[in-house]
Amino acid sequence: MSEKKIPYKIYLSEDEMPRAWYNLRADMKVKPAPLLSPATGAPMTAQELEGVFCTELVAQELDNDTAFFAIPQEIRDFYKMYRPSPLVRAYCLEEQLQTPAKIYYKFEGNNTSGSHKLNSAIAQAYYAKKQGLQGVTTETGAGQWGTALSMACGYLGLDCKVYMVKCSYEQKPFRREVMKVYGASVTPSPSDTTNVGRKILAEFPGTTGSLGCAISEAVEVAVNTPGYRYVLGSVLNQVMLHQSIIGLESKIALDKYGVKPDIIIGCAGGGSNLGGLIAPFMGEKLRGEADYRIIAVEPASCPSFTRGKFAYDFCDTGMVCPLAKMYTLGSSFMPSADHAGGLRFHGMSPVLSQLYHDGYMEAVSVNQTDVFQVAEQFARVEGILPAPESSHAILAAVNEAKKCKETGEEKTILFGLTGTGYFDLVAYERFHNGGMSSIIPTDEEIARSLAQLPQVD
Amino acid sequence: MSEKKIPYKIYLSEDEMPRAWYNLRADMKVKPAPLLSPATGAPMTAQELEGVFCTELVAQELDNDTAFFAIPQEIRDFYKMYRPSPLVRAYCLEEQLQTPAKIYYKFEGNNTSGSHKLNSAIAQAYYAKKQGLQGVTTETGAGQWGTALSMACGYLGLDCKVYMVKCSYEQKPFRREVMKVYGASVTPSPSDTTNVGRKILAEFPGTTGSLGCAISEAVEVAVNTPGYRYVLGSVLNQVMLHQSIIGLESKIALDKYGVKPDIIIGCAGGGSNLGGLIAPFMGEKLRGEADYRIIAVEPASCPSFTRGKFAYDFCDTGMVCPLAKMYTLGSSFMPSADHAGGLRFHGMSPVLSQLYHDGYMEAVSVNQTDVFQVAEQFARVEGILPAPESSHAILAAVNEAKKCKETGEEKTILFGLTGTGYFDLVAYERFHNGGMSSIIPTDEEIARSLAQLPQVD
Repeated sequence: MSEKKIPYKIYLSEDEMPRAWYNLRADMKVKPAPLLSPATGAPMTAQELEGVFCTELVAQELDNDTAFFAIPQEIRDFYKMYRPSPLVRAYCLEEQLQTPAKIYYKFEGNNTSGSHKLNSAIAQAYYAKKQGLQGVTTETGAGQWGTALSMACGYLGLDCKVYMVKCSYEQKPFRREVMKVYGASVTPSPSDTTNVGRKILAEFPGTTGSLGCAISEAVEVAVNTPGYRYVLGSVLNQVMLHQSIIGLESKIALDKYGVKPDIIIGCAGGGSNLGGLIAPFMGEKLRGEADYRIIAVEPASCPSFTRGKFAYDFCDTGMVCPLAKMYTLGSSFMPSADHAGGLRFHGMSPVLSQLYHDGYMEAVSVNQTDVFQVAEQFARVEGILPAPESSHAILAAVNEAKKCKETGEEKTILFGLTGTGYFDLVAYERFHNGGMSSIIPTDEEIARSLAQLPQVD
Repeated sequence: MSEKKIPYKIYLSEDEMPRAWYNLRADMKVKPAPLLSPATGAPMTAQELEGVFCTELVAQELDNDTAFFAIPQEIRDFYKMYRPSPLVRAYCLEEQLQTPAKIYYKFEGNNTSGSHKLNSAIAQAYYAKKQGLQGVTTETGAGQWGTALSMACGYLGLDCKVYMVKCSYEQKPFRREVMKVYGASVTPSPSDTTNVGRKILAEFPGTTGSLGCAISEAVEVAVNTPGYRYVLGSVLNQVMLHQSIIGLESKIALDKYGVKPDIIIGCAGGGSNLGGLIAPFMGEKLRGEADYRIIAVEPASCPSFTRGKFAYDFCDTGMVCPLAKMYTLGSSFMPSADHAGGLRFHGMSPVLSQLYHDGYMEAVSVNQTDVFQVAEQFARVEGILPAPESSHAILAAVNEAKKCKETGEEKTILFGLTGTGYFDLVAYERFHNGGMSSIIPTDEEIARSLAQLPQVD
């Protein structure tokens, strides 16, 4: 088909939208390692997990074989409110770069939560509602996930208790207000509503909290309150499953125009966006039907793929959650204050970790100041103010497009633009004022936290 | 065509997008009255206007006869970055209201400026660039217009000087930062960069500024700096022309599905969104080809249509701009602190004023607390956090839909959802805290400011 016919934005019609999520694990020769009980060291059973998570989500979590899960009609209806997200041909960026590369991005920011997180939030809230639960609990740091979950729960009439890291609660009052618009209760963590919160407050009276502590509070409330379960926005296999909607829509849109990407790029924190974007493409690669270069982009301040270790580790700093086998910097690793809050996680999705370990994908790390520079460049030519997280992917895509300029290769690049930066303007302000730095952990720091990895067989 | 086939969101393809703006004035039997010179009281000539505005925009401003203006290819390309905006069938809202009415809204918030203002900003910046100018100046209060203009200028490489009312500059640092991302210079007004600014600062050292003062500063800089002109985001005829893209897209989308609205609703401050949304529908009405109920919704705190007078008045509180014949509360009218900043204007588009005067449209005023209540209800079922301005239209649409429920009539309602509320969360917070009120001016207050209208034959 003629190149000229590709529009700036490709929207699928409702008929073209995916009706099933794709479970990448079904096509993996080496499956991701199971979650282990922190108490016994044995694989977590469905029964153990169901104390914390919704029953149907546990089934999704443990299922390494079923390739497609039908998306329930109610979720598909919700998706229609803000999906399909546009697949954008970055004509303006290409022109600015004077590159022969063809650049596409899948933009997930056109919803009030401002990111792709809503794709899994509605699924998790739906299964909680279906199970007859009264509500769900969760934690949020920067606030994207908490906002997304609040929207999903507000829509379904489900109670939503969000534990928000206290410093974010105070510094990001707007995120907090959006959650309240959607009817969520938002509690600054640590709080006196839980045992763990009270204990930490007694020990560190002035603490502004941490994600690890907020997770522990949310889990405690879920486990001890009848009719409640805990939900999580990244890392888990079930989240990768729900987020496959990103890649499936992208592939349908590209296939319509006969376009096949050479390189697929996504930012990687816990891996939910990257895992979703690459899912159907990686499936083809695993089945030997096609080949793609797949690149994970992480911040140099928190480089779990590029400088971490593939090992069992705790998912939370509080060490109460199950152990996952993943690329990790150690659960005691404290990343420097990086404004891409969504990428400040010491570990990585077990699915993506296994794929990276087996050589199916690459990873690069980039510096924060370079990220903000390219974010601003992108905003001016493509009109979208990107989230700092998403801008990691932009930078890698721009770098690949520049290589094409040097070599003259007309490669097709697809990257994930996970969200908008409307709630990240404090970071943009710091960038404008020259107060932003790129702090990279020393080898010693990483070695120190890796030395504390739990001993598993 | 079967009702069932209407999708949640209708997107036009690039081929279907309008190629010309529609000039409503061409079909008006009684044309809007001309702008008058504040110095001589005579109609402003093109030559006089060209000292302030770009030449081609002056031509558009004064042309009451040409029905269609071709949209230059460069502007159409820019439109493709964020248009077509979706026409949404509000299935979820209809279900919640249990109304037989069919509700559609045209959503203009899916761009980084967060509102419809970008439609005219790119047009005005384009003509400035085409004229070989170096830059443009403008004022901004709440910040939507300043952001939109910054985006357009950033894209075209045009210098952009924004005078931002000082209290907004300080209270809305995020709006300010977005403008900086796009390369604009943002000056808190009053400033020491202009004569009028220095004069006001000397007189009122602690002042936090006003829109009237910011306009005066922006105009002064434009008039006195070679290669610069002043641009404005509402009220003017040229702005109505550019914003007709909203209504044209809406009509093409509805026509595709054989849908004809019975009622068309828009919020009205200066009138740019309402004028744009209704343009092609009002055209049919003026030509006697169809009939529509058209409703302008204004805040009870600033009720220019419903309690103002149709008379010549200054557009700015500084009384330096031309006189326009419009519905006005008097240029000295000070609306109470209402959070729908975009609707706090004492006057109204001369085009819309004439149409209202001639009985072609209706107007209602609504209370702020009711507006925020419906905004929150809308956010929960439709997933979009609306701007306070836009929520005035939501309230009127919901009220009409409730009437349909009572009467059983299956009316089709179209309203304009002009933007998102991401930068209005201070107002939402006040609403949640119970600190919001609906202050309505007394008859005496309005009479007092109307008594100061300029004497024009």
